[in-house]
Amino acid sequence: MKSVSIVAIGDELVNGFTLDTNSHWLKQELQKINFNIKKSVNIPDSNKLIAIELKNCLEENIDFVFISGGLGPTHDDITKKALSEYLNLPIEINDKHLKFLSKKFRDSYNKVKITGKLKRNIETQAEILNSFTSIPNNIGTALGMTSQINNTRLFVLPGVPAEYKDMIKSYIIPTFFKSEPKSLPILTIKTTGITESRLFNLIEDIINTTTNTFKFSILPHFTGVNVRITQLTKDVSINKVKAMVLNKVGMYCYGYDDDELKNVVYSLLSDKQLTLSIAESCTGGLISKKITDIPGSSKILEGSLIAYSNNIKASILKVSNDIIAKHGAVSSVVAEMMAENIAQHFKTDLGISITGISGPDGGSINKPVGLYYIGYYFKGETYSKKFLSKIKDREINRKISSETALNLIRIKINEYYGK
Amino acid sequence: MKSVSIVAIGDELVNGFTLDTNSHWLKQELQKINFNIKKSVNIPDSNKLIAIELKNCLEENIDFVFISGGLGPTHDDITKKALSEYLNLPIEINDKHLKFLSKKFRDSYNKVKITGKLKRNIETQAEILNSFTSIPNNIGTALGMTSQINNTRLFVLPGVPAEYKDMIKSYIIPTFFKSEPKSLPILTIKTTGITESRLFNLIEDIINTTTNTFKFSILPHFTGVNVRITQLTKDVSINKVKAMVLNKVGMYCYGYDDDELKNVVYSLLSDKQLTLSIAESCTGGLISKKITDIPGSSKILEGSLIAYSNNIKASILKVSNDIIAKHGAVSSVVAEMMAENIAQHFKTDLGISITGISGPDGGSINKPVGLYYIGYYFKGETYSKKFLSKIKDREINRKISSETALNLIRIKINEYYGK
Repeated sequence: MKSVSIVAIGDELVNGFTLDTNSHWLKQELQKINFNIKKSVNIPDSNKLIAIELKNCLEENIDFVFISGGLGPTHDDITKKALSEYLNLPIEINDKHLKFLSKKFRDSYNKVKITGKLKRNIETQAEILNSFTSIPNNIGTALGMTSQINNTRLFVLPGVPAEYKDMIKSYIIPTFFKSEPKSLPILTIKTTGITESRLFNLIEDIINTTTNTFKFSILPHFTGVNVRITQLTKDVSINKVKAMVLNKVGMYCYGYDDDELKNVVYSLLSDKQLTLSIAESCTGGLISKKITDIPGSSKILEGSLIAYSNNIKASILKVSNDIIAKHGAVSSVVAEMMAENIAQHFKTDLGISITGISGPDGGSINKPVGLYYIGYYFKGETYSKKFLSKIKDREINRKISSETALNLIRIKINEYYGK
Repeated sequence: MKSVSIVAIGDELVNGFTLDTNSHWLKQELQKINFNIKKSVNIPDSNKLIAIELKNCLEENIDFVFISGGLGPTHDDITKKALSEYLNLPIEINDKHLKFLSKKFRDSYNKVKITGKLKRNIETQAEILNSFTSIPNNIGTALGMTSQINNTRLFVLPGVPAEYKDMIKSYIIPTFFKSEPKSLPILTIKTTGITESRLFNLIEDIINTTTNTFKFSILPHFTGVNVRITQLTKDVSINKVKAMVLNKVGMYCYGYDDDELKNVVYSLLSDKQLTLSIAESCTGGLISKKITDIPGSSKILEGSLIAYSNNIKASILKVSNDIIAKHGAVSSVVAEMMAENIAQHFKTDLGISITGISGPDGGSINKPVGLYYIGYYFKGETYSKKFLSKIKDREINRKISSETALNLIRIKINEYYGK
């Protein structure tokens, strides 16, 4: 299997100003076509550190190296210069790209004459290392480039995500990456509602008895645990192992591989032609945001109400101030009323609600931070579920509680339809 | 200045299954106390690659190396073994941690006897390298450890984010990281509504005339451009340069350093004791989610309506089907009605609305994907703003349009109060 290294350059990446989502995206793309990454690195805009990293990659005979960042028009864009010095290759102007840029700037600056500062600016962006081939930029202005250096194919790309992704998808993968034969399958079983150690205990015997034929990875997240199974030899069946695992933990499994809970819920409801409305309190729109991440979600979601104040709960959801005074806004009674009334008000099949205390403030001894009630209404049945997160982080609690609400829809609808 | 490297280990990190947010968080923490990262690396669970990376760090005399991941109880947790082999140090059991774990398991498993599989499991987690010092784990079960190897201080940490962060905050930073003297200031000016190249043109002269005393970095994102100014010498004033930059681009500046637009809007409204309601269509809850990310946001946000279908726009926001038929749901007329009516219905000072086409479907020649109208109502004034994103990505368009809505609140409220 060919080896790949990713080198993302930029002070903003090592200082924590910018999260390196480009490299993460590239890993996912290469995983799809069965290439594995040997190393992914962030380094600052430093001539010396760029040289050290490039030297490491060439010495280790990495097959493909993706270098990105520092190709723009501004003064701290030093990547080309650093490569030119280390590889001892002069920088020259790429005429085709210069013409392309000049036209682009003339068009957007209303046929202004390109002289002085603007001209120098454009020339800088059209620079390429001698012997390198240019990579077309369909989106922005920076010039990508590639060359074979000894055993290593080098790609030099802009750090702007849209340009970076387009160059890789439109040019690099079709030109240089034939898919590796995917002879041995990999499967990820996605679960929620069970802890890592409990899950491990349930399937430990399966792991131990298949150790020569399958590799298991157990990957916990805040909102669930994934089990990744990699087949190691031919002549065995991953489906058989999958069935063994599901036999132990199937009730916690919501999907496989790229499945996300929100998409699973969307498919479930749109298959059954059911409509949904949501009354959110503490999650403040997060559940609705997740559902509407999905193109076509208007098929199932009529709308949502974010009842952040008790006034709105009272006036629109008809949860009276008396009831709130008696049971508290965070209670099963209120969650159930919210679910029933949103479904009625918005004329939908399902009504989902959530009320809780995300923190950091607002908790008490009886109702601590992390306490949630999720309400559910469907075909005359009203139901609510209480849960308590032990984490005191507002953002994490909102994530966990919104996923728990989606999971409740999945479980209850499957239950109703006898699945 | 001391040098720091971050080495995060895990197949899931290089395969793109998990985004390495730990390293990003650590970079931010170290930046706060003025330490800079020389390198941040992701490598797979591989004995050989762990050894190569450790060798590089020791040879380059890095002062502090943070190694994380692969300390858990499962079979693919090989970090300790790899370090033991490379450093030629035997693995032994840490008695104190073993006692702590045994008690923890007895307590949570209802005083069960610890034998067999469970006993071996616990012993594995209590293992430490000879000559290393343990790092207490206040949250989970894995044992962290540290040692000085030649010129390098090595920290070995679990990859679980809560445990990783707690060990660094509670133990490592107080014990080993005295804040570096922050003699020279850094300032980030945050802008939105202006492109990178336009901004660069406006401040290029300032950059060129201060090149010996200040370093400028221009950092574009989808929703704005940051200008980071690093002071390079004593005896100059960063405030003077700040004023020069603001003189050119102040109208686009919404804040500094860690400021986020949502917090700026929150402070603006809570200072003036103004309440807000939001009617979202295409953004499906994202604007409300951003506002409610902020603890205490109930002070300003009464609630929101996500009118994802035209039915809800008609029945609750009183935007009749006739008006939608005449002007289209994505129009200035509808945006303005939504803003007015949500403010009236929810009894708030401000009403904000958004209607648009996020894509990938739903566009037409006259109303393409990326077209948005934002509506605004405050003290009798109704206003709307049209904008067109050239990007065809649903997620990015939703991000950009929600930030544009927040920015509109900022501009209009500042305008009203004569700022």
